[in-house]
Amino acid sequence: MSSDPRPAEFPSSGLERALPHSPGLRPAEAPSPALVFDTLFAYQRTAALRAAIELDLFRAVGEGPGDVGSIARRCSASERGIRILCDYLTILGFLSKTDGRYANTATSAMFLDPRSPACVASTARFLGTPELQKPFESLAEIVRTGRTVLPGEGSVEPENPVWVEFAHSMAPMMAPMAAPLGSIVLNGSEGPVLVLDIAAGHGLFGIEIARQNPQARVVAVDWAAVLEVAKENAREAGVADRYETKPGSAFEVEYGGPYDAVLLTNFLHHFDHPTCVALLRKVRAALKRGGRVAALEFVPNEDRVSPPMAAAFSLTMLATTAAGDAYTFSELRTMYREAGFGDVTAHPIPTAPHTVVVGRAV
Amino acid sequence: MSSDPRPAEFPSSGLERALPHSPGLRPAEAPSPALVFDTLFAYQRTAALRAAIELDLFRAVGEGPGDVGSIARRCSASERGIRILCDYLTILGFLSKTDGRYANTATSAMFLDPRSPACVASTARFLGTPELQKPFESLAEIVRTGRTVLPGEGSVEPENPVWVEFAHSMAPMMAPMAAPLGSIVLNGSEGPVLVLDIAAGHGLFGIEIARQNPQARVVAVDWAAVLEVAKENAREAGVADRYETKPGSAFEVEYGGPYDAVLLTNFLHHFDHPTCVALLRKVRAALKRGGRVAALEFVPNEDRVSPPMAAAFSLTMLATTAAGDAYTFSELRTMYREAGFGDVTAHPIPTAPHTVVVGRAV
Repeated sequence: MSSDPRPAEFPSSGLERALPHSPGLRPAEAPSPALVFDTLFAYQRTAALRAAIELDLFRAVGEGPGDVGSIARRCSASERGIRILCDYLTILGFLSKTDGRYANTATSAMFLDPRSPACVASTARFLGTPELQKPFESLAEIVRTGRTVLPGEGSVEPENPVWVEFAHSMAPMMAPMAAPLGSIVLNGSEGPVLVLDIAAGHGLFGIEIARQNPQARVVAVDWAAVLEVAKENAREAGVADRYETKPGSAFEVEYGGPYDAVLLTNFLHHFDHPTCVALLRKVRAALKRGGRVAALEFVPNEDRVSPPMAAAFSLTMLATTAAGDAYTFSELRTMYREAGFGDVTAHPIPTAPHTVVVGRAV
Repeated sequence: MSSDPRPAEFPSSGLERALPHSPGLRPAEAPSPALVFDTLFAYQRTAALRAAIELDLFRAVGEGPGDVGSIARRCSASERGIRILCDYLTILGFLSKTDGRYANTATSAMFLDPRSPACVASTARFLGTPELQKPFESLAEIVRTGRTVLPGEGSVEPENPVWVEFAHSMAPMMAPMAAPLGSIVLNGSEGPVLVLDIAAGHGLFGIEIARQNPQARVVAVDWAAVLEVAKENAREAGVADRYETKPGSAFEVEYGGPYDAVLLTNFLHHFDHPTCVALLRKVRAALKRGGRVAALEFVPNEDRVSPPMAAAFSLTMLATTAAGDAYTFSELRTMYREAGFGDVTAHPIPTAPHTVVVGRAV
């Protein structure tokens, strides 16, 4: 075996092929085992970033002076551990290293140092929830059966506590999308509007509409424990007097209305086509004629492999739900039409990998 | 919070920034949360590739015709699961997709389809060993204490069965290095030589020397269960009559000798500096005067953050050993000199991320 004249080309800079700050990419069709090994080791990247966030390392580096000793003291950690972790984070592009001192890169300074208002470090908590990650250890079995190994409906089982964690920790990821979504939904209307926010979570999307339009009233639906987070956020935003909640399942709770608009954010992807259509029918019944439904979704192109982040989200739905998916626009449009909506349009959010899909009750 | 005018730029093609086949990279200093989210989701890449290997998907795709239905039948898996997994593998660069049919990329055809003699798919078994991966779930704690959460010496505890798995499954990764290592160690010598192979594992390195030089005799040291794999490989290679084994710890077993050369492959990185020096002294004592020791190692540059794959290996040693590391050449040279070696030279292996560090007993 050892004399096999295999044409293995294994560049010593293997890992950099998968790294965003790498200058030299090679053609996709030049075979190299580097991609295989990079991928088999990719779980370490997630572990390293999570550990750094848990240790509050990006604050420690950001405050300087950036030598191993002072970072280790601020993080209450060993110098050996800090040195190796910081080197690894430098390789990934989260830190820079000059003369043995580390500094946050622009990305880390803005999105990982807790002193930045745009910090998204808290999202590591939800994205690292064992319930959402564990199924990936059984992914071959999930591919065999075509559904999550979690019981029942998976992550969308009633009162699942992961959605409380979602409400607490994912707001910073969703916040940049709230303003564009609000504009799309309000569509210039300035008068009194009544808006239903289904699967409200942290509530930011409905709250943003109440902020953009002082005559807007918002009704939020989610599990009771989740709505506590949304109510707190509504109080902080000063819109609590126009913010009402309806605890329960989006499929069972009485919506009331009729509404001018309904938000369906990060929700349809958890369910199969018939379930989505049934929900959209219920939504349509709660809308005024001409009212708008707006779903915030990962919407891959029709090829289902681009853009990468939206398309890759299908795997999370395979692993954690019974029958969810990242639906293409044509699939969503079909659902909307079957549920009685017209004028279905897609609005990609420029600052995010998400798309808002709007339909009008006809 | 939602009205925060944060400058988040989140390109809809986020994932591609971390993907090797991506055409458009952006400057490292343009802040984007995409790298953060790519990294928090990176564990899914490992899970997807492992699942595909477990399902024998690359053979199924390679044999064609590549539609979801026929791949699902060959893999005894659901069409939904196969479709989503194949799309994800396409995003990562392992498959291509044309008109709904999948094909192996050049990398997968050569390194993941079991019909290829260069297939390295078996390495997923060792690299996915729970004992080696579990510690990464406690990485913050490991950084705090500076050592693995595994008991004792971690992965190098006596008779650890992971090294049997290593011997069985890692040969395809190591095989391309055997011929260059053999040439470096033999250094043109054609007469009778006696070679000691410490931590022999699969035995490929010593066996290759026996193949390159018909007058070479090889003595292999490793745990008894591991040596069974090496002996089987020596038989298959037709060199069993010149292949002897000494079961036990490299630190305790009587080496015999004197030897013309000693191989120390993938071994020094598990231990701290004083332990490496002690072992090298023992090696030197077993060498003829002028004899050579050759260590196969991941050797990062002095900056410890390049080349990426060699430098990143430090994190694996932090997570799985008590005090191991990926040592720089200057660190290794110091160890060699302290142990009585001279003429210390580094020989990067062109087809691999590894380097052979040679010293001469003086």
